Amino acid sequence: MAGSELGSRLRLTTWGESHGPALGCVLDGFPAGMALSEEDIQVYLDRRRPGRSPVTTARKEADRVEILSGVFEGVTTGTPISLLIRNTDQRSRDYGNLKEAFRPGHADYGYEARYGIRDYRGGGRSSGRETAARVAAGAVCQKLLSECGISVRAFARAIGPVWVPEEGLDPSLALTAPTAMPHAESNERALAFLKECRERGDSAGGVIECRASGLPAGLGDPVFDKLDAGLARAVMSIGAVKAVEIGDGIRASGALGSENNDAFYMDEEGHVRKRTNHAGGILGGISDGSDLVLRAYVKPTPSISQPQDTVTSGGEEISLTIRGRHDPVIVPRAVVVAECMCAFVILDALLSSMTARASYVKDFCKRKREDL
Amino acid sequence: MAGSELGSRLRLTTWGESHGPALGCVLDGFPAGMALSEEDIQVYLDRRRPGRSPVTTARKEADRVEILSGVFEGVTTGTPISLLIRNTDQRSRDYGNLKEAFRPGHADYGYEARYGIRDYRGGGRSSGRETAARVAAGAVCQKLLSECGISVRAFARAIGPVWVPEEGLDPSLALTAPTAMPHAESNERALAFLKECRERGDSAGGVIECRASGLPAGLGDPVFDKLDAGLARAVMSIGAVKAVEIGDGIRASGALGSENNDAFYMDEEGHVRKRTNHAGGILGGISDGSDLVLRAYVKPTPSISQPQDTVTSGGEEISLTIRGRHDPVIVPRAVVVAECMCAFVILDALLSSMTARASYVKDFCKRKREDL
Amino acid sequence: MAGSELGSRLRLTTWGESHGPALGCVLDGFPAGMALSEEDIQVYLDRRRPGRSPVTTARKEADRVEILSGVFEGVTTGTPISLLIRNTDQRSRDYGNLKEAFRPGHADYGYEARYGIRDYRGGGRSSGRETAARVAAGAVCQKLLSECGISVRAFARAIGPVWVPEEGLDPSLALTAPTAMPHAESNERALAFLKECRERGDSAGGVIECRASGLPAGLGDPVFDKLDAGLARAVMSIGAVKAVEIGDGIRASGALGSENNDAFYMDEEGHVRKRTNHAGGILGGISDGSDLVLRAYVKPTPSISQPQDTVTSGGEEISLTIRGRHDPVIVPRAVVVAECMCAFVILDALLSSMTARASYVKDFCKRKREDL
Amino acid sequence: MAGSELGSRLRLTTWGESHGPALGCVLDGFPAGMALSEEDIQVYLDRRRPGRSPVTTARKEADRVEILSGVFEGVTTGTPISLLIRNTDQRSRDYGNLKEAFRPGHADYGYEARYGIRDYRGGGRSSGRETAARVAAGAVCQKLLSECGISVRAFARAIGPVWVPEEGLDPSLALTAPTAMPHAESNERALAFLKECRERGDSAGGVIECRASGLPAGLGDPVFDKLDAGLARAVMSIGAVKAVEIGDGIRASGALGSENNDAFYMDEEGHVRKRTNHAGGILGGISDGSDLVLRAYVKPTPSISQPQDTVTSGGEEISLTIRGRHDPVIVPRAVVVAECMCAFVILDALLSSMTARASYVKDFCKRKREDL
Repeated sequence: MAGSELGSRLRLTTWGESHGPALGCVLDGFPAGMALSEEDIQVYLDRRRPGRSPVTTARKEADRVEILSGVFEGVTTGTPISLLIRNTDQRSRDYGNLKEAFRPGHADYGYEARYGIRDYRGGGRSSGRETAARVAAGAVCQKLLSECGISVRAFARAIGPVWVPEEGLDPSLALTAPTAMPHAESNERALAFLKECRERGDSAGGVIECRASGLPAGLGDPVFDKLDAGLARAVMSIGAVKAVEIGDGIRASGALGSENNDAFYMDEEGHVRKRTNHAGGILGGISDGSDLVLRAYVKPTPSISQPQDTVTSGGEEISLTIRGRHDPVIVPRAVVVAECMCAFVILDALLSSMTARASYVKDFCKRKREDL
Repeated sequence: MAGSELGSRLRLTTWGESHGPALGCVLDGFPAGMALSEEDIQVYLDRRRPGRSPVTTARKEADRVEILSGVFEGVTTGTPISLLIRNTDQRSRDYGNLKEAFRPGHADYGYEARYGIRDYRGGGRSSGRETAARVAAGAVCQKLLSECGISVRAFARAIGPVWVPEEGLDPSLALTAPTAMPHAESNERALAFLKECRERGDSAGGVIECRASGLPAGLGDPVFDKLDAGLARAVMSIGAVKAVEIGDGIRASGALGSENNDAFYMDEEGHVRKRTNHAGGILGGISDGSDLVLRAYVKPTPSISQPQDTVTSGGEEISLTIRGRHDPVIVPRAVVVAECMCAFVILDALLSSMTARASYVKDFCKRKREDL
Repeated sequence: MAGSELGSRLRLTTWGESHGPALGCVLDGFPAGMALSEEDIQVYLDRRRPGRSPVTTARKEADRVEILSGVFEGVTTGTPISLLIRNTDQRSRDYGNLKEAFRPGHADYGYEARYGIRDYRGGGRSSGRETAARVAAGAVCQKLLSECGISVRAFARAIGPVWVPEEGLDPSLALTAPTAMPHAESNERALAFLKECRERGDSAGGVIECRASGLPAGLGDPVFDKLDAGLARAVMSIGAVKAVEIGDGIRASGALGSENNDAFYMDEEGHVRKRTNHAGGILGGISDGSDLVLRAYVKPTPSISQPQDTVTSGGEEISLTIRGRHDPVIVPRAVVVAECMCAFVILDALLSSMTARASYVKDFCKRKREDL
Repeated sequence: MAGSELGSRLRLTTWGESHGPALGCVLDGFPAGMALSEEDIQVYLDRRRPGRSPVTTARKEADRVEILSGVFEGVTTGTPISLLIRNTDQRSRDYGNLKEAFRPGHADYGYEARYGIRDYRGGGRSSGRETAARVAAGAVCQKLLSECGISVRAFARAIGPVWVPEEGLDPSLALTAPTAMPHAESNERALAFLKECRERGDSAGGVIECRASGLPAGLGDPVFDKLDAGLARAVMSIGAVKAVEIGDGIRASGALGSENNDAFYMDEEGHVRKRTNHAGGILGGISDGSDLVLRAYVKPTPSISQPQDTVTSGGEEISLTIRGRHDPVIVPRAVVVAECMCAFVILDALLSSMTARASYVKDFCKRKREDL
């Protein structure tokens, strides 16, 4: 309730600034008895790490995670999992006019207005670096979801004007291509576009798509904790995201009811299924057993190397030129962040659904008494 | 944390089913000392009420609100404000196959999967009627915001293919036109389109826009309680909303950084201002003093009168025809719901910002001791 | 988080003032599928109701509960259960100097200092009448606990100098005796003592004991949500409670470790048991399978008919005489309140324990998929 | 909501096991702009540190705190304050039968029953070592309270049969005496008693008293977030605490109303005061401006060196002898823990009170707009 916390049954608290000694998170309420190693988490952090490709910042961060609590002999114990990532590339440097200037498109002014003080080094808490902690926590959630047969995967759907088509995707590219686009040709075109952007000292935005399959129907609490409401909050809380949609989303608003409704039918094994999935797997805020589909619309990186008009905290109007190399687009690195946010929200909703019926409670008590 | 609660400093709990005896809410944490009457709330409920126009359901509901607690001699006391709205039009009727059938586009199947039981009368808790309680609570928030110089206003931006233009708006029409469109010509065209829809037994979607002005810069907590994250959750939790965007939103994802960044300048009175507002008044999750702009994309009403394929809870495939008259589009009535959700989130963020600095705390203690 | 809410998985929000039109509560997160009628709740409310005996206030309140939501065809649906109790005996009367005077031992001054306004009629929100809503919610929890084989029962352990002995108790008297003491002789002595008190225009305090049996070991979250911490908060939040102890409690602080430790052994059926129960069923904040034992120490009723020195909100020193008849001791009526608070906390802890292991989550997903 | 979190406006999350690599906490929602150094925290940790005196365990822990975030150039920034304490004395050793045995009086069995796995090294999460994180966070709160003119101080009131008298106290001894008793003679007698205990292989309990002065009247939210309810929860959550009382507490339950009520009067400066303070500074859950008085009753250390009957996780009955040196009484080291818990709860309540009136909100908006 104080800003850096997310979740209900499962509770994530993140902390850390871009250029402080470290950043990390505490994941509380995570179930006991799951095998967990630092390597399980590291593979996710590596997907987010800067410095891998021509389209990401040159900042070098090893982003090695340390598990400080909640795991004993390689297994989760049910107590808070504390994860720590040291900031290694925090060399002291001359921040020049960034100490005073409010960078356009950044949170600088808002922080100053709110707190009267701000850590101007690399954006402090408002830096995209904060998302490393989210990814670390999400990796833990992904492991349990996977053991439950639930898969949550994100990829880049668009960068600037380049859209990945609906068909002919190669999912493995989402993990390996520099753009995180699951489509070789789109990847090439996006890289060319980004090269141009960078040459002009400009930046681009794009779209991240996340898909989850294997969710049982019935996840999501009515009203304010609807599954889509939880996802929207968690994904919108990623720095540069300016819109979130579920299923057909924006397009649904222009469709007719007869087009947008998904007809139900019974499959051969006697399960309820839908013929189409305009709803994106969520109806009335509750999962319907179809694939969950979410898209996040990401604004262009606000740090550009062209000179920009702005003001200082002292009230002076200046022309600001931001030095250093920045991601010309944050979509490729934000893909795993969005994926991890979705995984967290889905696991939290799954835990919540385990207490939804009185019969579950009675069965639990009975089994518990027999076991002890 | 159990689904029907929203907010942090300010806490809203709603309850009630479409065809139960009543519905309502409890608003806890609301500051003491504000004049409040039932009439203050009623004007908001009247904007949401069904039965006003050709484009809304014929269900008759007086939607009279009763204040049951938290107000003494016409003034809020700081204790929970309990608001009650009786359901008057809950005549017992033959629900026919709706007892068993899962209506396409509705939450029926999800509720059954989750709870193993559902109140099938009018959708029970998943009915749009649930939003009356949100409006009642939002009206209370609107009053305090207004006394603080903050205005939050929503209107219909689009219905089906009809979009309200950017210029030439008449805000008063948002309150009086049957479509809630602030543009007479668009209103006419949308009504014509809806008439067609209804004749074909079909329905339409649309877009709601909400604008807030007068917000001080600095509202919103970093990371998960970013102002836009809170708005996204609250607005996405409205039944039929499938996408939420802030400022340029979706369009921002296709823009260049040099286009999307808003330059800061100093106005004549020495206040920090922005030359453009692509950000929609929120940077890094914190209000920047510009107008807040949010759009919600609403799917077409799922209840249509054409026959639809679906299944029953017993696993039978059937063709379902939904009788009765339903809103051919829910946008006009949902406008005030979105507005009230935004007002609630903004007021909660405002209260949070009041404890953001140690100097505020010290000043408070000092003044408090002098007063007592 | 705004004062009138309790619980985590299970969420209770209460509202209402002593002399407002009604009071009530919303119980959210309660599992679906349990049979529930108003009569199930009424039996608990009747135990709290004033006007039953010579030791309670003469105020007449029917305290009839209405279920407004969350129950469909006599069964809980998983959605918020809204419970309403009308205040029937709220005749307008002359509050005389109570409008201005701060009654000693009451919350009047604190409310005025906090809010700058207070509902002076019968104490407003700070009235013991507020606990009717807690009892209504607790009754619902008691029903599910009972179906799970968990019994939670409270009784009066002491009133003034009269203590109920450890042995020779008749539990049924806790429900029928005017003092709620499960011991006929103590009941008589306490009644005689209270008669004296009343004649002197004075009042008495006492001790409530609550015992829960049938709890599986393992309830309670480590650290801040320890089972005893949750119980202490919920019971201390009852108006006149000034101390809470678990098991030997205060006496334990004077014992030696060798006396206070409870030895474990295996019973004939192979279950872990303890030879003694100094711990009161909770070790390290987690239930240990023994009976839970809690005692609440209740101060004497602050409303006495002797004249008392006090001040007014205007800063005048006065001698105040409180008219009307008040409970000379609140223990008998508070017994069911403490019981209901314990039941709520225990059920919430039980729900929390259902997600404590990864294997539970995996089993749940598996069964869920097979069912749908 | 997942066990290791406390607070509402202010939010504390702790993590860490006794013999893991480190332990720590995140303090979120702390106001910006307060000077804070590691030394400010260290002085509190030093009061809790083991190995200082004959009555504490011989375990050597430097308990050096590192501030990892939330402080920039020596000043709090409003973002989460992450505090880390490395465990230095975690040498691998032979745990022998402690791997399997459930130690009497400890949480071992409960953890096993709940999670099916437990970190048996030194009690894991249930170790008293967890409280180091609470002290670190509390030290931060103490600093702001102190700047607001609020003092929160605890001391040992009793150890075994030795009680500190009401009069003739030397507060500085609470910080320096090995027993934390503010009374030289009591300290000597308690040390002699503890020497005996240790020689018999036994342990003792005791009583901690905490007093807070300078609180403005009006802190505490009605109903479930009453100030005493919050204190009771936070203090009861300290491992060995078995009872909590406010003001006269237990004694109040045996008093008459005419004795227990505190008369109000006006002091010379025109402030409302009370002639006595049986209430311990809290009436109806809200601070009344008098000193806050709380006592925690602490059980004897469960780890004793006498052989004890118990069982193993495999269901075998054994005689257990716990080796190593343990605190023969935990009161002296727990004093600062209780103090820190009280400081946290009081500061949280103070922040909450800052939004209690509509006039505060309006004033805040006005000032904010002028400043920006």
